Amino acid sequence: MQRIDVALVGAGRMGQVHGPNAARTPGLRLRYVVDPRPHAASAMAAATGAEAATLDQALSDPAVGAVLVCSSTDQHLANALQAVEAGKAVFCEKPIDLDLQKARAAQPRFEGARFVLGFNRRYDPHFLALRQRLDAGAVGRLESLHIVNHDPAAPSAHFIPTSGGLFKDFTIHDLDMARWMLGEEPVEVFATASCLVDPGIGRQGDVDTARTVLRTASGRLCVISNTRRSGYGYDQRIEAFGSTGMATAGNVSRDTVQVFDEHGTTAAPIAYAFPERYAESYRAQIAHFAEVAHGAARPRTHYADGIAALVLAEACQRSVREGRSIRLQEQS
Amino acid sequence: MQRIDVALVGAGRMGQVHGPNAARTPGLRLRYVVDPRPHAASAMAAATGAEAATLDQALSDPAVGAVLVCSSTDQHLANALQAVEAGKAVFCEKPIDLDLQKARAAQPRFEGARFVLGFNRRYDPHFLALRQRLDAGAVGRLESLHIVNHDPAAPSAHFIPTSGGLFKDFTIHDLDMARWMLGEEPVEVFATASCLVDPGIGRQGDVDTARTVLRTASGRLCVISNTRRSGYGYDQRIEAFGSTGMATAGNVSRDTVQVFDEHGTTAAPIAYAFPERYAESYRAQIAHFAEVAHGAARPRTHYADGIAALVLAEACQRSVREGRSIRLQEQS
Amino acid sequence: MQRIDVALVGAGRMGQVHGPNAARTPGLRLRYVVDPRPHAASAMAAATGAEAATLDQALSDPAVGAVLVCSSTDQHLANALQAVEAGKAVFCEKPIDLDLQKARAAQPRFEGARFVLGFNRRYDPHFLALRQRLDAGAVGRLESLHIVNHDPAAPSAHFIPTSGGLFKDFTIHDLDMARWMLGEEPVEVFATASCLVDPGIGRQGDVDTARTVLRTASGRLCVISNTRRSGYGYDQRIEAFGSTGMATAGNVSRDTVQVFDEHGTTAAPIAYAFPERYAESYRAQIAHFAEVAHGAARPRTHYADGIAALVLAEACQRSVREGRSIRLQEQS
Amino acid sequence: MQRIDVALVGAGRMGQVHGPNAARTPGLRLRYVVDPRPHAASAMAAATGAEAATLDQALSDPAVGAVLVCSSTDQHLANALQAVEAGKAVFCEKPIDLDLQKARAAQPRFEGARFVLGFNRRYDPHFLALRQRLDAGAVGRLESLHIVNHDPAAPSAHFIPTSGGLFKDFTIHDLDMARWMLGEEPVEVFATASCLVDPGIGRQGDVDTARTVLRTASGRLCVISNTRRSGYGYDQRIEAFGSTGMATAGNVSRDTVQVFDEHGTTAAPIAYAFPERYAESYRAQIAHFAEVAHGAARPRTHYADGIAALVLAEACQRSVREGRSIRLQEQS
Repeated sequence: MQRIDVALVGAGRMGQVHGPNAARTPGLRLRYVVDPRPHAASAMAAATGAEAATLDQALSDPAVGAVLVCSSTDQHLANALQAVEAGKAVFCEKPIDLDLQKARAAQPRFEGARFVLGFNRRYDPHFLALRQRLDAGAVGRLESLHIVNHDPAAPSAHFIPTSGGLFKDFTIHDLDMARWMLGEEPVEVFATASCLVDPGIGRQGDVDTARTVLRTASGRLCVISNTRRSGYGYDQRIEAFGSTGMATAGNVSRDTVQVFDEHGTTAAPIAYAFPERYAESYRAQIAHFAEVAHGAARPRTHYADGIAALVLAEACQRSVREGRSIRLQEQS
Repeated sequence: MQRIDVALVGAGRMGQVHGPNAARTPGLRLRYVVDPRPHAASAMAAATGAEAATLDQALSDPAVGAVLVCSSTDQHLANALQAVEAGKAVFCEKPIDLDLQKARAAQPRFEGARFVLGFNRRYDPHFLALRQRLDAGAVGRLESLHIVNHDPAAPSAHFIPTSGGLFKDFTIHDLDMARWMLGEEPVEVFATASCLVDPGIGRQGDVDTARTVLRTASGRLCVISNTRRSGYGYDQRIEAFGSTGMATAGNVSRDTVQVFDEHGTTAAPIAYAFPERYAESYRAQIAHFAEVAHGAARPRTHYADGIAALVLAEACQRSVREGRSIRLQEQS
Repeated sequence: MQRIDVALVGAGRMGQVHGPNAARTPGLRLRYVVDPRPHAASAMAAATGAEAATLDQALSDPAVGAVLVCSSTDQHLANALQAVEAGKAVFCEKPIDLDLQKARAAQPRFEGARFVLGFNRRYDPHFLALRQRLDAGAVGRLESLHIVNHDPAAPSAHFIPTSGGLFKDFTIHDLDMARWMLGEEPVEVFATASCLVDPGIGRQGDVDTARTVLRTASGRLCVISNTRRSGYGYDQRIEAFGSTGMATAGNVSRDTVQVFDEHGTTAAPIAYAFPERYAESYRAQIAHFAEVAHGAARPRTHYADGIAALVLAEACQRSVREGRSIRLQEQS
Repeated sequence: MQRIDVALVGAGRMGQVHGPNAARTPGLRLRYVVDPRPHAASAMAAATGAEAATLDQALSDPAVGAVLVCSSTDQHLANALQAVEAGKAVFCEKPIDLDLQKARAAQPRFEGARFVLGFNRRYDPHFLALRQRLDAGAVGRLESLHIVNHDPAAPSAHFIPTSGGLFKDFTIHDLDMARWMLGEEPVEVFATASCLVDPGIGRQGDVDTARTVLRTASGRLCVISNTRRSGYGYDQRIEAFGSTGMATAGNVSRDTVQVFDEHGTTAAPIAYAFPERYAESYRAQIAHFAEVAHGAARPRTHYADGIAALVLAEACQRSVREGRSIRLQEQS
């Protein structure tokens, strides 16, 4: 397979995940690293055999066929648009934008694009295996879901104002997962939330602990459990209940060692954080993007999925404010 | 310890659990079995060395010091009142009554009584061990709970009209558990429900699948997951999330055998139903009642707990009808 | 079912297990307790509604149809013989005798007797479930076994001289289990042993840690792992390997609570000791004896099983002494 | 860190594991691939950016500082010797040679060499974690070990004649693991073996199922359980028993999905075979070799470990033949 040259936009937290993965993915070659901080760009470039450049330089290189948008959230949409309109295949970290209206307005310009949105959990082997078991009828007709997404430790409160808030920043992964697993769109949303972890988060007007209940037209129910700080690692589980049983995807432990003594049985902690827990999903996602860039696959997570998750996140916010269920048509 | 003579009222499903337990509990002697169906009364009496009698006969025997009320739900309150007013110690199956107003009206007559209400799960060794771990600070400050209560198979639809509905008949156990584990009263309730298991249940105006979210004054959150039919046994789990970790109480398997072959690893099903899963809790509950009857312990589950759970169950029903959170003061 | 009157001989450690079980077993009535220590006999008698008596008194009562021999090991054979010859059904704790020649000499007098030997583990629900899975072909043709039997804490060294030593006192349970699970007699035995737990045990000429390898005529292999002190509870496991997979029976935990925090995952200890771990097996064993006593079942663990296990235990001792495999025909 | 050029000798089963790992390891650059089969060499070279060459060509390149010996077993020693004498750092797959005398004769020529022997399991994160827990005193003073090493499926019988037999080919990993975990050399070996899996293996004079018992001078005991065909995947477990408890390292499952239905609980199979189960150990081993090659670390698995394991493997063979324990000094 011929290699497509790739430009990475953003060498921060997510760029440091996706850049090296792109460098190792057959069918891709990391060519440029774009970052407003020159040192960040050149360090990543050096580590991956790429070259620091501006976005304009990278996009004007006709050999560049693909762009990874890992910039700060407020740049996602602009960077992705510029790359798509330059004819490149685009991978874009979630969320597309924190502003639903803006994201919707741009949607037509992504029609037909080779565009993959970074809902990485759909590429996780454990959740994929769960989905396959459900599709194979392992628990009969799906009736309800329980999604646990607990971060190990809260971000510092100063991150909150630009984050979009718990629902758009964090729950959005679960809202996408719910849509994917339920096989049916939610029509009603209820959410309730507290600030229990860090009063500083509350002072920024945000919450850190939430429970969300989704309901589909056929009556399927989905609960999402979120906290910004678990204290015990990155708790990432799904339980799916069907007409003949339950299927679950559980946490991954750091090792398989167990110690038995008079006080009980002790096992290793669960995986601590996203780079460790989701390493395989990130690799698989970029491998999928390589196929999309080559025209060999249709995107599994597209722009419309980003819009749909944002709509649900806004409904969550409104439900918390109003203390009632929000029907989705009210949201338009 | 001298034995107190006991009268069992009701030799049906729960009487068949509590009667033999009372017969085996040190400090109690099963003396009379009361049941409007003569054959049921005499069969139980024969099996336990007791004697069939009417309630009046039993209560008029001065040697009888304790009564187990296991009659049909609509008789609970009348039977319990009659026994309390005859000066007997009373164990009463839940719910006290399906009618909250009626139950409240009778409450003063139970003041000071040696009265134990049948919220058996508080006596379960697994949930007790969980509570002890929480009290010992194993996960820091408690922040949220997740309670799973899934029955293995739905009751026949004709049971529904006299059941009080899902929330008063089934969720009520979880509402009591939530109060006990949270260590703080819920002040807000949201519930949503579907009829997914049996359309016949829906035709009776009831639901069979529900999710309930409770919220306390300090912002603690509790989700309750209910279904009338799990397909995989009697799913009875609790997850408690605190400031430093998570503590869980899990299902009990029927045996410890596992089979590993090329298709995977297979373990025994979880305990199928309440008599098997909660056998120990029923024994411990009657042992506790024996202590209460002897004046050696104060009731751990009292009339007021029954009232509080009924208030929450009614709030659930109202929340489902109105599609919004119900604040508890609205409920008075 | 008419009740058979039972005499319990020995109100010590095992008598305190079997006496109360017999008192509760349908079809049996505990009538007499025989113990050279008057206080032990009368305490047990009071607790179970029985009466203290001498063995001669008990055996001369024609209503007594069954005897439980739980005396000290050196009395097992004499007590059992006396009871069998008085025409009673006999349950006898293991071992029949520490002296294989003596046990063999008496064997003809037990021919046709309603006699159950106390190899209780064959009645354990977990091991029974394992055996049923093997019989059902869950792992194909059985090829090898691994039996773990680790006591929680070593007996005091002064118990050792009358114990018969590790192999006759402790491993004997595993030798019986191996015969039962393998479905084929061992023809070759190798054992090696150390004194690692308590030098006092070594000074008595015994060992406290051993590994035994059995081999059947068809080449099936069985390892037995023993220690007198595990430090973590009563480790009782079996792994069975077959042509298509592995089946295991595992330990039972004290409760299902797990705590997850930054240090890892902690679960309850496994069951600590035999009365807790094997409570169900003891009940089932006496229930089986009741059926045998009534002539409704054939003994599942008979005198010949005791002889066979003793033969293997002696081969283990000889293997340790001689540092080589012992073929069973050498043992006659 | 400057990169050392590496020559891979052998592009077969193990070369295909180590070659790509070397190509990705910082501090190494895969430069040459040597294989008598030209197509195998050039395919591997193409996939890793290396070049096909003869061993002489590779060794005569002064830029080549390290050699990976992954040739057929009968070439290991000759290849390793040639590379060591050319002054290269050498990684060599196990076993050094099937002929203990030959291996011993060459030993002096490896004194002081930067030489790493391919006992990969010492680099496995699970077994490393177990060892660390033991070293930290998690179970007190180590007393005994149980090592399970069951291959998923037997090799074809025609592989047997050149394999060295079960003990030198397969058990040798466990003999090395035992030495490493016990922290003390075995002084006595007993082994027994059967041919239960494939009569064709027996016709080649080999066995496919074995149990080995090692004993150290202080009386520590170690059992090794081996079969060529488990039927359920690659069973790789260790149990370590100490004075205060047990520590275990368990199998790795393919995913975390579990399905619960009326028939029981089903989980994914365990990892099927060595490339999947030990992928991390192979990477860590080559990373360690890179450090050794750079002079930054001392070898963790050296030539002498290969000799010691061979001595034990020969003792196993002799024990099977003679039906007795072999004391190691008898082995000279």
